[in-house]
Amino acid sequence: MQLIVIGGVAAGAKAAQRARRVNRDIAITLYQDEAEVSYSACGQPYYLSGLIADRDALIIRRAPDFQADGIDVHVRHRATRLDTKERIVEFHDLARDAVATARYDRLILATGARPVVPPIPGSTLDGVVTLRSMAELDRFRSALDRLHPANAVIIGGGYIGLEVAESLHESGVGVAIVERLERLLPRLDPEMSRRLHDHLVAKGVRVVLEDSVAEITGHTGRVASVSTASGRRIRAELVVLAIGVRPNVKLATQGGIVLGPSGAIAVDPRMETNIKGVFAVGDCAESHHRLTQAPTWSPLGDIANLHGRVAGENAAGGNARFPGILGTAIFKTLGLNVGLTGLTEAVAREVGLTPVATVITTRDKARYFPGAHEVTLKLVAEAAGGRLLGAQVMGAGAVDKITDIAATALLGNLGCRDLENADLAYAPPFSPVLSPIIVAAGALSKKLE
Amino acid sequence: MQLIVIGGVAAGAKAAQRARRVNRDIAITLYQDEAEVSYSACGQPYYLSGLIADRDALIIRRAPDFQADGIDVHVRHRATRLDTKERIVEFHDLARDAVATARYDRLILATGARPVVPPIPGSTLDGVVTLRSMAELDRFRSALDRLHPANAVIIGGGYIGLEVAESLHESGVGVAIVERLERLLPRLDPEMSRRLHDHLVAKGVRVVLEDSVAEITGHTGRVASVSTASGRRIRAELVVLAIGVRPNVKLATQGGIVLGPSGAIAVDPRMETNIKGVFAVGDCAESHHRLTQAPTWSPLGDIANLHGRVAGENAAGGNARFPGILGTAIFKTLGLNVGLTGLTEAVAREVGLTPVATVITTRDKARYFPGAHEVTLKLVAEAAGGRLLGAQVMGAGAVDKITDIAATALLGNLGCRDLENADLAYAPPFSPVLSPIIVAAGALSKKLE
Repeated sequence: MQLIVIGGVAAGAKAAQRARRVNRDIAITLYQDEAEVSYSACGQPYYLSGLIADRDALIIRRAPDFQADGIDVHVRHRATRLDTKERIVEFHDLARDAVATARYDRLILATGARPVVPPIPGSTLDGVVTLRSMAELDRFRSALDRLHPANAVIIGGGYIGLEVAESLHESGVGVAIVERLERLLPRLDPEMSRRLHDHLVAKGVRVVLEDSVAEITGHTGRVASVSTASGRRIRAELVVLAIGVRPNVKLATQGGIVLGPSGAIAVDPRMETNIKGVFAVGDCAESHHRLTQAPTWSPLGDIANLHGRVAGENAAGGNARFPGILGTAIFKTLGLNVGLTGLTEAVAREVGLTPVATVITTRDKARYFPGAHEVTLKLVAEAAGGRLLGAQVMGAGAVDKITDIAATALLGNLGCRDLENADLAYAPPFSPVLSPIIVAAGALSKKLE
Repeated sequence: MQLIVIGGVAAGAKAAQRARRVNRDIAITLYQDEAEVSYSACGQPYYLSGLIADRDALIIRRAPDFQADGIDVHVRHRATRLDTKERIVEFHDLARDAVATARYDRLILATGARPVVPPIPGSTLDGVVTLRSMAELDRFRSALDRLHPANAVIIGGGYIGLEVAESLHESGVGVAIVERLERLLPRLDPEMSRRLHDHLVAKGVRVVLEDSVAEITGHTGRVASVSTASGRRIRAELVVLAIGVRPNVKLATQGGIVLGPSGAIAVDPRMETNIKGVFAVGDCAESHHRLTQAPTWSPLGDIANLHGRVAGENAAGGNARFPGILGTAIFKTLGLNVGLTGLTEAVAREVGLTPVATVITTRDKARYFPGAHEVTLKLVAEAAGGRLLGAQVMGAGAVDKITDIAATALLGNLGCRDLENADLAYAPPFSPVLSPIIVAAGALSKKLE
């Protein structure tokens, strides 16, 4: 039995490894269009900031590591055609500039996502960068080293834009963020997005909302400034396109594989597509949202790994199921940790629920304990019964812990009456005597119908 | 309506505040035998180590803070007699050396616990200390400052003994721990207790097991050494009695209040005792264990606060319920964080369950990320079906987060098949791409029947 995996960054690499662990007998071949496999795209901002000094530390496993496990790896092979009837994939062998074909019994698509590059005049100037692949990382790093930008414009106020804002700020580059929408990170409720906004501004970041970049102007082939639709002109020697990403589904659609409403590949709980024996995982695939029951697209590294484990097991003959996502995410920007899970108050209303919410600001450790930091927690629950719907957490403190407690509570369908008496781990170096989530759940319980 | 609260450290202070918040009209009087109310006993080890420089930072609220909320406070009043028929409490007013009496309509007992002081010859020598009240803390601090001990013996290898071991070690004092049982912290499974043991020994702590102190020998009234039952002689200028604590229930039993099997006061889910209108909270009261369904005694600061909230609300006319505990605890000793929740493998067997378990050692952040620390996680689940039963976590890393995820999972009756696909918060500064709990749950899933 021949298993082919197309794409070897996170989901594909994990799927191949899991398939091998489940079944020692099948043949597994991994194709990757880049020169490297199995790297941490999520770690890239920390290499740009200099926190991670060694670029290659981002590479988790190399081709020989896979070969040692009996997984054949072909790098610099771009899949160009998929025939799901004959079960053949055609590749462009980039090194030899030749066509290669391969036949599969089972196929896992892990083709990932690509940054959206809008047709802005000047976007090919030196100093206009994106961030996704290792090649893009190298170009970004090179731009920093060659151009020594004093100022940068980041187009897009999502996770990647905000993480890169930190990287640049820590490198001494002045940062402006231009966001088309009326607030940063619209996945947050307005008052939480506002806190994020205020934090960035307090740290010296210029935040331009409801505006977009109309043109990037150069000088001797290098970026010099951007002009916005509303007529602003912002000086910058570096422009980061962080508008968003789109799933890479060209190969899939060409092969007759059905997409879901999000535009990513539709899959069942076994991560199998409409074509039996063909699985899709990671940033090119949809997930089921456990709270809205709707298909959703969540292109994040941990989800990619979870997808990969399930599809790898199934492609090798197992029967694993992926139960879906909660929309959990976390990032850090200029020293502010931001975590979210489940539904915001706004989204809860959109999907027809009646939420109640509370926002508290407290500390993540006993008040008297050195190193205690502030955290702000917004907890959202169903007005009738108090079932937890979501949490948004922000601060210099243990945002990750509170987000994970809330995510686990969502997984367990817990209500705020359960959480207000939760037996969580307390000692002064770790927590205030009552965890912020207990305090917030107690406040929210008082608001229930 | 007159509410009397006896004891004002954690549970009593919280109960009085909650009662006041729920009901502005009742009279509330708080009696405390010490000079101070509302302090963090859990923070004391960090004042001894010097990490917290200001002793008074441990005091959360003072008598005037309570008075400002309309809560009458009488410090240095020791309750000596309780008449639950006439609803009268008699106090010894320590300042005036006089008897005082007070009549109540509702009563909350928050009389706490006391360190066990065994009848060891020499235990009244200068340099023999305990830790619980602020007076004991002051004596401990004074012993350190006056005696400048080069070596200390800690009798008892439980939480307090281990926390004080860190305090002394960080102050440059050589530490020996003498534990009567065959291992440190028998609430941990043997292999986890062994890890803790090895860590302490590697840090230079002498650990003596299956032995007890037979005599403390002095020189000019001061501690000079201890002799153990097995004939060891250990030089020490400081001896810490940390054998354990017992609930203060003398007043309760004298007043006809029924104790539970643990020896602490039996309460119902409203925290009410066998006598209507009399509540018991904190270290003198039992809790219901959510997993064993048995009454249990868990004298910890966070449980005291949860108890206090429930009893305070009910004493003021509400109807809150305390759903019980999970046995969650955490502490830190010589840089090692140790967390536990739910049942150990051994206890699961004792209560008639059939557990499976796995132990993994991994990192708490992406491997390449600066500041990633090792954590060892033992996860225990029911062999049939995989319901999570407990977790033990140890390491220099984010033990508190993993413990809290596990505790929340226990609260939600989650199984390891739920946890192996949990959507937790991932970004490199916060977590490896798959949380240790996901990895351990995945490994455990493979062992299920």
